[in-house]
Amino acid sequence: MDEPNVNTLWGRIVADELAKAGVETAVMAPGSRSTPLTVAFATHSGIDAVSLLDERSAAFFSLGYAKRTGRPAPLVCTSGTALSNFHPAVVEADAARVPMVLLTADRPPELADSGANQTIDQEKFYGDFVRQYRKLPEPEAADRKLRSLRTALSRAVGVAGGPDAGPVHLDVPFRKPLEPNADPAGRPEGVPAGRLPDGFETPKRPATDGRDGPFVSTMRGRARLSEADRRSIVGAIEAANRGIIVCGPSDRPVPAPDALSAFARASGFAVLADPLSGHRFGPHVEGLTVCGGYGSYLPAIEATPDVVVRFGASPTSKVLRNYLRDAGCRQFLVDPAGGWREATFTATDLVVADETRFASDLAGALDREAGDYAARLADVESAYWDRIDGEEPIEGAVLAEAVRLAPDPATVFVSNSMSVRDLDRFGRPRSASLSVLGNRGASGIDGITSSALGAGYGTTDPLVILTGDLAYYHDMNGLLSVARADVDATIVCLNNDGGGIFHLLPIEDHDSFERWFRTPHGLDFEHSAELYELAFARTDDRAEFRDLYTEAVGRDDTRIIEVRVDAEKNHNDRRRLERTVIDRLAK
Amino acid sequence: MDEPNVNTLWGRIVADELAKAGVETAVMAPGSRSTPLTVAFATHSGIDAVSLLDERSAAFFSLGYAKRTGRPAPLVCTSGTALSNFHPAVVEADAARVPMVLLTADRPPELADSGANQTIDQEKFYGDFVRQYRKLPEPEAADRKLRSLRTALSRAVGVAGGPDAGPVHLDVPFRKPLEPNADPAGRPEGVPAGRLPDGFETPKRPATDGRDGPFVSTMRGRARLSEADRRSIVGAIEAANRGIIVCGPSDRPVPAPDALSAFARASGFAVLADPLSGHRFGPHVEGLTVCGGYGSYLPAIEATPDVVVRFGASPTSKVLRNYLRDAGCRQFLVDPAGGWREATFTATDLVVADETRFASDLAGALDREAGDYAARLADVESAYWDRIDGEEPIEGAVLAEAVRLAPDPATVFVSNSMSVRDLDRFGRPRSASLSVLGNRGASGIDGITSSALGAGYGTTDPLVILTGDLAYYHDMNGLLSVARADVDATIVCLNNDGGGIFHLLPIEDHDSFERWFRTPHGLDFEHSAELYELAFARTDDRAEFRDLYTEAVGRDDTRIIEVRVDAEKNHNDRRRLERTVIDRLAK
Repeated sequence: MDEPNVNTLWGRIVADELAKAGVETAVMAPGSRSTPLTVAFATHSGIDAVSLLDERSAAFFSLGYAKRTGRPAPLVCTSGTALSNFHPAVVEADAARVPMVLLTADRPPELADSGANQTIDQEKFYGDFVRQYRKLPEPEAADRKLRSLRTALSRAVGVAGGPDAGPVHLDVPFRKPLEPNADPAGRPEGVPAGRLPDGFETPKRPATDGRDGPFVSTMRGRARLSEADRRSIVGAIEAANRGIIVCGPSDRPVPAPDALSAFARASGFAVLADPLSGHRFGPHVEGLTVCGGYGSYLPAIEATPDVVVRFGASPTSKVLRNYLRDAGCRQFLVDPAGGWREATFTATDLVVADETRFASDLAGALDREAGDYAARLADVESAYWDRIDGEEPIEGAVLAEAVRLAPDPATVFVSNSMSVRDLDRFGRPRSASLSVLGNRGASGIDGITSSALGAGYGTTDPLVILTGDLAYYHDMNGLLSVARADVDATIVCLNNDGGGIFHLLPIEDHDSFERWFRTPHGLDFEHSAELYELAFARTDDRAEFRDLYTEAVGRDDTRIIEVRVDAEKNHNDRRRLERTVIDRLAK
Repeated sequence: MDEPNVNTLWGRIVADELAKAGVETAVMAPGSRSTPLTVAFATHSGIDAVSLLDERSAAFFSLGYAKRTGRPAPLVCTSGTALSNFHPAVVEADAARVPMVLLTADRPPELADSGANQTIDQEKFYGDFVRQYRKLPEPEAADRKLRSLRTALSRAVGVAGGPDAGPVHLDVPFRKPLEPNADPAGRPEGVPAGRLPDGFETPKRPATDGRDGPFVSTMRGRARLSEADRRSIVGAIEAANRGIIVCGPSDRPVPAPDALSAFARASGFAVLADPLSGHRFGPHVEGLTVCGGYGSYLPAIEATPDVVVRFGASPTSKVLRNYLRDAGCRQFLVDPAGGWREATFTATDLVVADETRFASDLAGALDREAGDYAARLADVESAYWDRIDGEEPIEGAVLAEAVRLAPDPATVFVSNSMSVRDLDRFGRPRSASLSVLGNRGASGIDGITSSALGAGYGTTDPLVILTGDLAYYHDMNGLLSVARADVDATIVCLNNDGGGIFHLLPIEDHDSFERWFRTPHGLDFEHSAELYELAFARTDDRAEFRDLYTEAVGRDDTRIIEVRVDAEKNHNDRRRLERTVIDRLAK
């Protein structure tokens, strides 16, 4: 049962070429139609294969891995509804520019529209949410087809990466038999008999055996502004009295830390760093004016900026977004992929350029002192952290402690909804190497645990997951990857038994609030920990949380720490603190 | 907080018009952008609203409800990845022709492509998987828009039903404020002040208040063949010596039971009834030759049919499909929606006609005796059940007992993969009113529990769910609806710790089988029962299963009965039985 046939040859070339193109991990959901791919990935010594049972969780696992590593982890599934379970992660990968390669097995074309089992129309299944769609040809051991196959795969890895990274969908039809043969009959010409090897050796035929590296490579230049354009921006910065740099969410820090530091110093601008920007945490924040508490204190700052340079996606903080909207000044949005990624329509100039190159170039052309405005922001930032310490609502305190006490280095994955907002407000800049990630593209709560565990799989850092009860519930199936992918985490679940975020909205005052918006579920998550054989602890006390957390992050296993919070009290505490902060910090 | 504004008016008209068009149930996932819809459904006295937290489970719940009742249960979600979690059920609803109305809240058009939170391109999100897509206009209290809104909704219900039933997607943009107002300022002209009423009273304006019934209605005629076409089919049947009727999966029995009975008697043909056809179980099987064991014994039948009349979708049984393929005779496929729903390309004639009308017409034109072939099938059918009794592999025995001992009436929902195949082979025809349903459109295992609980929600019958461990795992989140929708079930989970079905495939002999195909998960599902506070029992014994099952179906609460089975032993038992059956029953 190890003799190649045309399908196993096809599968082996897929795995071989992807490995040569730099792929190290594949994520597979079990199924029959995908057998040639599954066997190829499972037996390829250069690729770690992870098998997960719920395709939705599998896709988010692949997403998280790619967010942390920058490399796609190809996703394999069988035909039928399996594809649609990948869709949530595909939407997120598109919005957040995460490399993803989807290999969806399909029935052969003669079964189209026949009512055959698990046969649906997989053509362009993800619509505009993918950067590229291709239906691969029917497997055949013909030179031209094999060359086409190899180029399709290496090109797909190229398309999935780059500044406008995203998902690529390759639909892969197979006709039975899907398994390797029991004897060498049916072995395609030129393929050696015997047990399936990893790669391909003699006889050397490029189409079958591939090249030493990838069959084709993509070299991608980085966009750099003309001298004239740069001079005009330098002029705007030179003329500014109250300039700031805003760094929004980005899986890798943009500009690179050194370039950002040089640019901030040379311009004299303060840096307002989203917790997901890669610039709120890291050795480079030492000695820079990096602001993190702006979401609380900006309303207390009397002056507005007169020039803004923005990197990354639209910031998490609504307070910051509105502050930028109300500034009415010149705002440069720097994006190498040319996206106007800002939701308030206040940016005036789009700069399509590599962020690091841009920041370095400007740093070289500027030499300014930090002015009053940067000094005021630095003062308020420092006063904010000193004065709120211990006064945060408990949800905020937990997020604050989670990053303050996280090991250095660590990967920290934070859920949407309240968790990332609280981290934004209460996570103090720190010089530790924390890779803080979140699904901030489409901001769903549907695959947080799997995304986080996928990110953890891509690194040797300790992994911390900061989540809420609805996100935890939504992706409980994702906990299966703790055992199946052998990845561990400290999981902090803030449980307010329903949608605490709705307390922030006016619907809080409506009769239907409790049942239809807050939607308490009443689940005791300790049982979910037992299901996956994970350690579990529960607290509603800050000091006890600190102890539990410090112990958990120092261990090698997976522990869930549930912090029970009262959503309404927490909400009121947050409002009270907001008023206090503004009163205290206003001049 | 109960004063209408333009969004609440819009939401109320949606709920009001859907109720007038016959909708009784809505299924909602919590979210902010959908607030006007959520409040409208939650407060409408004519609509039961169910709130579920995982959109994937919610959509399957809606699907199951519609399968059981024939009526759509509109689905409401917020913007963003929420939509993509509906996709698996949309794919199934399309393939299985299940009415579904999707109401997806959207950001207003000015936020398109802005990077705003939870803002994605929702245009034609489900591609060709929906019968109709419409983006509703921006809410406004203008007569023409409100008339357009009402017609869009009532037309959507019309499009979602009928012979080619399926999903309809209405994208519903809203601009803040999403909540009802606190005071009457902003109240649209013509809408009374004060607390939101269910419907609309004075002043009477058709656009705002609607009509007494639906704003617009669809009357759909049923296709009937011409006299000449009927005569030609009657001629083919008159000339046949070995005719059979094959009934494939269909949520409602087609033709209607009386018409099928009359047609079978008048033609003298035996009926081969899929377990999901509605014709294997029911009072009308008494006195007819209804065959259920064909998947085991057809290989022992020497003669092949010389004319076949087929209703419903492609049968579950591969043995039957291959038997039909090899017959090489005239095969009439009757489908009112004009689909060639057969995977082996052997049907010769497509009959686009209402099945009940067709069967009644033919019954009126025929008066034949059952011949030798029908008698042979009847004999073998009866001998099969008498002789295999107690010899089934345990999985088969559990499925056999589950339908034999199910209350009369009952709704029985069966999972794909092994469960439905075993039910097909081991579920003996019975005169009890069992509504046996499965997701046989795209045959996924992703939403079985939710589909089943949705079906249970649509009926007062006791509900039985027959599932395997992978399907159970995939939709554990669906168990939340037991409490939230107050629906109970007896859940039988055949646990072989992984994909037992792969033992049926040649890959069983490959090294990679255990880890990459059978994929044992090792989960102890008792903890999942504890999470949802459901009773749980485990057995590996047939007699004990009978006792547990008989007790469980007689109770009002939800009980999970896990039957531990050894996939490999079960597989070998099945093979052995197949050989025995053929030896015993061959002439």
